[in-house]
Amino acid sequence: MLRWLTAGESHGPELVAILEGLPAGVPVSLDDIRADLARRKLGYGRGARMKFEEDELTISGGVRFGETMGSPIALRIGNTEWHRWVDVMSASPVDVESLPKGRGAPLTRPRPGHADLVGMQKYGFDEARNVLERASARETAARVALGAVARKFLGELGITLVSHTLAIGEVRVPEGADLPRPSNVGELDADLVRCFDPATSELMVARIDAAQKDGDTLGGVVEVLAYGVPPGLGSYVHWDRRLDSQLAAALMGIQAIKGVEVGDGFLTTTRPGSLAHDELVTDGSTISRLSDKAGGTEGGMSTGTVLRVRAGMKPIATVPHALRTVDVATGAAAEAHHQRSDVCAVPAAGVVAEAMVALVLANSVLEKFGGDSVDETLRNLTGYLAAIPAAQRTAQAADERA
Amino acid sequence: MLRWLTAGESHGPELVAILEGLPAGVPVSLDDIRADLARRKLGYGRGARMKFEEDELTISGGVRFGETMGSPIALRIGNTEWHRWVDVMSASPVDVESLPKGRGAPLTRPRPGHADLVGMQKYGFDEARNVLERASARETAARVALGAVARKFLGELGITLVSHTLAIGEVRVPEGADLPRPSNVGELDADLVRCFDPATSELMVARIDAAQKDGDTLGGVVEVLAYGVPPGLGSYVHWDRRLDSQLAAALMGIQAIKGVEVGDGFLTTTRPGSLAHDELVTDGSTISRLSDKAGGTEGGMSTGTVLRVRAGMKPIATVPHALRTVDVATGAAAEAHHQRSDVCAVPAAGVVAEAMVALVLANSVLEKFGGDSVDETLRNLTGYLAAIPAAQRTAQAADERA
Amino acid sequence: MLRWLTAGESHGPELVAILEGLPAGVPVSLDDIRADLARRKLGYGRGARMKFEEDELTISGGVRFGETMGSPIALRIGNTEWHRWVDVMSASPVDVESLPKGRGAPLTRPRPGHADLVGMQKYGFDEARNVLERASARETAARVALGAVARKFLGELGITLVSHTLAIGEVRVPEGADLPRPSNVGELDADLVRCFDPATSELMVARIDAAQKDGDTLGGVVEVLAYGVPPGLGSYVHWDRRLDSQLAAALMGIQAIKGVEVGDGFLTTTRPGSLAHDELVTDGSTISRLSDKAGGTEGGMSTGTVLRVRAGMKPIATVPHALRTVDVATGAAAEAHHQRSDVCAVPAAGVVAEAMVALVLANSVLEKFGGDSVDETLRNLTGYLAAIPAAQRTAQAADERA
Amino acid sequence: MLRWLTAGESHGPELVAILEGLPAGVPVSLDDIRADLARRKLGYGRGARMKFEEDELTISGGVRFGETMGSPIALRIGNTEWHRWVDVMSASPVDVESLPKGRGAPLTRPRPGHADLVGMQKYGFDEARNVLERASARETAARVALGAVARKFLGELGITLVSHTLAIGEVRVPEGADLPRPSNVGELDADLVRCFDPATSELMVARIDAAQKDGDTLGGVVEVLAYGVPPGLGSYVHWDRRLDSQLAAALMGIQAIKGVEVGDGFLTTTRPGSLAHDELVTDGSTISRLSDKAGGTEGGMSTGTVLRVRAGMKPIATVPHALRTVDVATGAAAEAHHQRSDVCAVPAAGVVAEAMVALVLANSVLEKFGGDSVDETLRNLTGYLAAIPAAQRTAQAADERA
Repeated sequence: MLRWLTAGESHGPELVAILEGLPAGVPVSLDDIRADLARRKLGYGRGARMKFEEDELTISGGVRFGETMGSPIALRIGNTEWHRWVDVMSASPVDVESLPKGRGAPLTRPRPGHADLVGMQKYGFDEARNVLERASARETAARVALGAVARKFLGELGITLVSHTLAIGEVRVPEGADLPRPSNVGELDADLVRCFDPATSELMVARIDAAQKDGDTLGGVVEVLAYGVPPGLGSYVHWDRRLDSQLAAALMGIQAIKGVEVGDGFLTTTRPGSLAHDELVTDGSTISRLSDKAGGTEGGMSTGTVLRVRAGMKPIATVPHALRTVDVATGAAAEAHHQRSDVCAVPAAGVVAEAMVALVLANSVLEKFGGDSVDETLRNLTGYLAAIPAAQRTAQAADERA
Repeated sequence: MLRWLTAGESHGPELVAILEGLPAGVPVSLDDIRADLARRKLGYGRGARMKFEEDELTISGGVRFGETMGSPIALRIGNTEWHRWVDVMSASPVDVESLPKGRGAPLTRPRPGHADLVGMQKYGFDEARNVLERASARETAARVALGAVARKFLGELGITLVSHTLAIGEVRVPEGADLPRPSNVGELDADLVRCFDPATSELMVARIDAAQKDGDTLGGVVEVLAYGVPPGLGSYVHWDRRLDSQLAAALMGIQAIKGVEVGDGFLTTTRPGSLAHDELVTDGSTISRLSDKAGGTEGGMSTGTVLRVRAGMKPIATVPHALRTVDVATGAAAEAHHQRSDVCAVPAAGVVAEAMVALVLANSVLEKFGGDSVDETLRNLTGYLAAIPAAQRTAQAADERA
Repeated sequence: MLRWLTAGESHGPELVAILEGLPAGVPVSLDDIRADLARRKLGYGRGARMKFEEDELTISGGVRFGETMGSPIALRIGNTEWHRWVDVMSASPVDVESLPKGRGAPLTRPRPGHADLVGMQKYGFDEARNVLERASARETAARVALGAVARKFLGELGITLVSHTLAIGEVRVPEGADLPRPSNVGELDADLVRCFDPATSELMVARIDAAQKDGDTLGGVVEVLAYGVPPGLGSYVHWDRRLDSQLAAALMGIQAIKGVEVGDGFLTTTRPGSLAHDELVTDGSTISRLSDKAGGTEGGMSTGTVLRVRAGMKPIATVPHALRTVDVATGAAAEAHHQRSDVCAVPAAGVVAEAMVALVLANSVLEKFGGDSVDETLRNLTGYLAAIPAAQRTAQAADERA
Repeated sequence: MLRWLTAGESHGPELVAILEGLPAGVPVSLDDIRADLARRKLGYGRGARMKFEEDELTISGGVRFGETMGSPIALRIGNTEWHRWVDVMSASPVDVESLPKGRGAPLTRPRPGHADLVGMQKYGFDEARNVLERASARETAARVALGAVARKFLGELGITLVSHTLAIGEVRVPEGADLPRPSNVGELDADLVRCFDPATSELMVARIDAAQKDGDTLGGVVEVLAYGVPPGLGSYVHWDRRLDSQLAAALMGIQAIKGVEVGDGFLTTTRPGSLAHDELVTDGSTISRLSDKAGGTEGGMSTGTVLRVRAGMKPIATVPHALRTVDVATGAAAEAHHQRSDVCAVPAAGVVAEAMVALVLANSVLEKFGGDSVDETLRNLTGYLAAIPAAQRTAQAADERA
């Protein structure tokens, strides 16, 4: 069982994350994690913060001499702007009067589409600062850092993740386009919007330019692929053991995600049964599936083919073209606070989604194979694949694992 | 914290379910549960099994004199066809040779779109009977029974659920159609496909007829609405506390579900930010939202407006027009087993989805309000709503709760 | 991860239990479980109920042809006296006036040492029937049934449990007496008080006779031993992964248990450090421990030597010599209800403790070794033991596993 | 639901802890936490490390302006000796040859009574450094810090904890001695061994002196008391909801604890039933218990009287008078590493135990009363106490809460 918690506010001193339950012997370096943190800032249409938001990363537990020790892993991501927020976000009491007028002013005009209003109601606050500081997507940096560690573990087992942008606003990669593979990650990360289809990528960039001109924002859809997943992660025996269920929770648990699909998802719901499933064929020695509409799961379990899940992100709720709200200090109609200037965060959402999928898969692997060291988990995994009877052996198990 | 487990095989003697953590004092009767079990069989396009599958319901723990006692609730749903399966599904060893040829024959041709093949690989079986017996959607009867109990609890708190069919195959209720309300449940249940839009309902029925003629099956989309939900269930403070995340897990944990949406879901991803969020306005005393595109959640919390989530179901994988597979006994190409004659299970999926949403909400309510008796939970809920400052009060909190 | 829930009231129609997460391929029979249920009734000093309390056992899910299927296991234990309680414990509303005067009368004199009074306060009841029905130790039958299944799983891995009575009242087996081994279980079960030391056994029986004469009750101490446990179950990396912690929770979670020890427990707290630990020696090829004061755990992990834990049980709280209480209907001083005539339940508590330990160990094994079938778990366990470097190999790992 | 994780190694840069699920509005300051960290170092018989081990405390999430925000709370405790360990405990790869000979040398002589040997076996290490760094009791500083926060929360609800030393080695406070109350904490902390009985305290100090002279170490017993606990925390409805079970897990989850008792614990097992339970009497308006042998729980629930639990600690396993072991590098007999010079850590163990009890109680309070702000939890708690019918009202509920 893998457990993890994150803490930290958007403008606080740092984000902190602990990952408990990972086996010993996973190679982990600051560079590995920094690379993923950098990827999280990718994408055309990001505002100024992404640029100055340097991630000061510290590993303060669980890793020694470049390898995990089996003990909980602690990561910290320092806020390089902390000196500007020391008073406003002070853990100790401050003289509220002395706070800087801008950053320190009470946020009494809750922003539609944000946690602001309900957060105040729920926790008993009279302004939204305490809410937005934690609800902010800044927190996803902590998840990406943890996900980077989980990906290293999966990598040792031959499992590799790829994420890409499927849609920005109404601009979408055509159905049936090629899927990126692990070897394409460099290209993807170099693309302005992390889209694998060059023509669509251009249209997406143009769409973002148009939105920026309009003072508007955009959402979209990302897809995460996992290569080398063995068959049999997750289970049909109880609803919450279904891999699909766990993936859905993980993806819908990302800020701004409003829809989740496994494989072709909602498209599959419009197909007749005769065309909706992945038929099984044999080449005389190995079974393979003719298609992957299901996204690599059947009965809530990984099938051993490419795992494929999608997350749909709503447009950024802090819209330059300000939205109507109510000032809870005065009760009067007002315009929403506007604090950020990103137009579109979809390309980065793919990286966050990848991290969440990595954490789910790492947990599923441990659930099925156990192990307190990478060697042990890998030995158990290899033994399992070898023990599948010849007549049940499927292509992926033998060929596509790295 | 609410916990629940279900057990039982599709053709075993019974389904068994335990729900642990519900407060005392919830009125629960056999009739309440039976009514939901009956609703689970609704829907044009179901095969013969639904008719003879009478649900012999027993409450064997946790309820006394028509009320819950705070102790775990045990429900059993007997299989009226058990006498035909006594040997094939015997818990005790049997002489395999003596099994009836049909029902007792090894299932060595795994059905695409089912758990069959991966289930054998994972658990080490040489045929699929043990897999499909548990992976079957028959198990959802147990969840509906538990959901009925959860709904009674929610009802005591003024929260009511409604589910309806949004799409069958490519036939879909037009965007912007009216949402059914609690008072419409009778109508909905009387409709052949549980669709609230009469014109679409007719088209859906015709579509099912056509599929049946083609020897094909259909999927679709259902939507669950919750009325009277207080603001502040779930939280933004950690990903797995987000109500959306929990709802996504619950819905994606239903057999055959491949996509989940909160509110307008993927449609929202195509809207510009200026048109995607629910603006806040005031009438001078109460704040309300101008729309409900978000589906009643912001920042992973219920907003107090109607909660609205969707699940997309793939077409039934047991297609009369048989799919290609491989016989794992011989290694030869084969046609998939075909055991069921349903064309479409979408209307029933709405009832199952409702049950899953009820269980999630019941848990969320307990997480926020605690309580070991309905009186205590309700007192805490009422106290919370009353303590929201006047300037933050939202419409739903005051008016729409039953 | 192994999960389990039990349900059912003491005089309700049945106890129900579900065990989720056990691998496939575990041999389980009604006789195995019945044998443990019968052992739970052993012991000199039990009253009438134990005799007529026949356990009508049903396996209604998760087992086929004598083996587990990986799906949740459902067990039911019918109450053979249910016909006498149909009205008093009816799940449906009844006319309270019509209830039989004795069994149906409100229980308004809460018994000291029982859940009665606090249960009423917590759940909002005006009499104690709803409380005692669930708080009763009758529920342990469900745990013993589940534990029997867990023991079968452990048995396949070479792990065997033994429990015995260490003390009844102030009569105690001398320090340093031999520990019973798996081959002694028959003897133990044949002993009137399940004590392995014949002389002490006689004294215990005499002590029970004396208590019965006095209208009094007795408690005592039981010990559970596990043979064949591999080194490395549990972990020091987080407090709740410590095997000792999990065992303590499991044992203290049994009705009437007020103390728990691992190994020599409190005795160890009085020893100087130089005499308190189990020194390590080598015979040139294998490391062994010179003693087992620690009870087979170090750093929260099993060491591979005999696991040994103890539970201290308070005397039965329903004392014939009635205790003072208050009638909550009248507010007047009163004598406590007296419903049962057992003098001592300690011998049976050993069997219950054994079941709890079995469930903890089964979970720990799955946590470390994973596996969806017994073959897979055993392969992983064997591979782990074989991979321990020669210089670290300990006696138990090689020699004592069955 | 309260969740928490700790991370960090004994000689690593820092300990890190996250506490998730605490309501908003709890007053928390660095001084509060520092005070408890200082108390953790109390006690006659501690070695040098306690003196230089200054705790550099940082709150880096979840607290603003001196109050919790409902978001996860992150605490860090810096290791002031880190500069001496930078190489030996480096997260990044180092040239092993270059490590300092002393601190950097491989630990191949596992210490009896420590996690060393099993830890190597389990995680696949060839020396024990990685094991002991995490298994060390240094980690309890993180728990004490979290416990300090939990205690602040409980304090807002009128619940106060006190811990004291009951025994050191065979020197024990006489049965029936007065229990310390919240107002005695200052005295206790001022006592050399945190013992409330002055005569026994002197004997304990002498016993420690003698052990030190002998090159030996000592264990003992601590007791934690909680005042002001409302009736009804925990439950009898399922084993793992029992407050006793949760407390036992928490206490047995502390390094070196080998026994746990609730109330009089094992002593109760030797009493006849007529003298073992806390009888109920009334003064005409309020029910009270004549004794508190049970330690403030009945049926797994708090009774509302003083909660009282004990933990037995084995003597420190790093004994100056070195224990026999085996060098796993050479296979030869050897003497165990000896790294620390504490004689007795029992007085400090009381403070750690207090922290664990605080975390359990905070969780139990939230389970029963819910609440996202202290105001809400307190309102729900107050409402519950007020709703207990007059005839069931017990003394504590009305009078002893702060």
